[in-house]
Amino acid sequence: MFKSSESIEKLISNLARLPGIGRKSAGRLAFHLLKVSKEEALELADAIKDVKEKVGFCSICNNISEVDPCYICSDPSRRQDIICVVEEASDLLALDKAEGFKGLYHVLGGKISPLDGIGPDDLKISELLARINQDIKEVIVATNPNVEGEATALHLAKLLKPLGVKITRIARGLPVGGDLEYADGMTLSRALEGRQEI
Amino acid sequence: MFKSSESIEKLISNLARLPGIGRKSAGRLAFHLLKVSKEEALELADAIKDVKEKVGFCSICNNISEVDPCYICSDPSRRQDIICVVEEASDLLALDKAEGFKGLYHVLGGKISPLDGIGPDDLKISELLARINQDIKEVIVATNPNVEGEATALHLAKLLKPLGVKITRIARGLPVGGDLEYADGMTLSRALEGRQEI
Repeated sequence: MFKSSESIEKLISNLARLPGIGRKSAGRLAFHLLKVSKEEALELADAIKDVKEKVGFCSICNNISEVDPCYICSDPSRRQDIICVVEEASDLLALDKAEGFKGLYHVLGGKISPLDGIGPDDLKISELLARINQDIKEVIVATNPNVEGEATALHLAKLLKPLGVKITRIARGLPVGGDLEYADGMTLSRALEGRQEI
Repeated sequence: MFKSSESIEKLISNLARLPGIGRKSAGRLAFHLLKVSKEEALELADAIKDVKEKVGFCSICNNISEVDPCYICSDPSRRQDIICVVEEASDLLALDKAEGFKGLYHVLGGKISPLDGIGPDDLKISELLARINQDIKEVIVATNPNVEGEATALHLAKLLKPLGVKITRIARGLPVGGDLEYADGMTLSRALEGRQEI
């Protein structure tokens, strides 16, 4: 595309590999990086390097962390008898910001998705099973409420049941601030199913 | 936001400075970079560094280039008597790919935009004026067909007229493949104004 500069071409194709960024946006980003000061561009490059050098995974819960174990697993003030299972570290962050839960987490690192070639063995499921002992009273399965997330939840339930631990699933229903009128049928029927006495 | 890792926080705020990328997308990109292989992430970091180190600006036309003068200014097969003025190097690329023009270019490096604090002195206008001599027969002003682009074009015309060079403006009209029904009023009136005999 760009005869005069191989390095721009390389930057564009590298940027285009990021999720949600096509070749056209990648071109726009590359031109932006060309225009900004050298310091600003190099700061981004260094930030990427830094993250890959410093950040690893917690050997207990698979959360991303600069220290091992992570700040959650090493926090004695948290409940040690309840584990919340999520797909990604970003889900953990979202839940932990909501502050309704003060137990431990386990990050699967994905969801069962045959179409993408991701099976149970690609997730940190055996690591989760290894954490279950008589001290653990409950496992909350907080995978996403979509087809793959539900399939992953079912698979986990099947493996966890024999271990005699209580397994729960986060509630599906209407989002707070949402609108009955605009909710889809699946959500409405889940909201009805999961109704609670007031 | 993310207590366990300063470096992720830094990466997110650096990514969020890119155009069209908010804090939420920046978070998603940062998590993606965490998940990909170290090689892939470092390739992107190096590509950014490379671009800032290797790519500069052509001293004649202000086009981005790894060599000086750029491949356009140093190509003797191009017409040397006509200069097409564009706002950004990306506009030059788009025009040059369209292949209707085989003359020289001049990249202003922006457009007059008082709201953003960009005045005529921030653009490479004096460099353009310095290129005008009796060998130059025509200057095509190909700034964008919006308010700032038109203002820039008018300003250039005012400065170029006294130099006795022919000044033209790219045609405004209906885009090829476009639809009369969905065109805005401004475009339609420009299309009528600019009508040509067939």
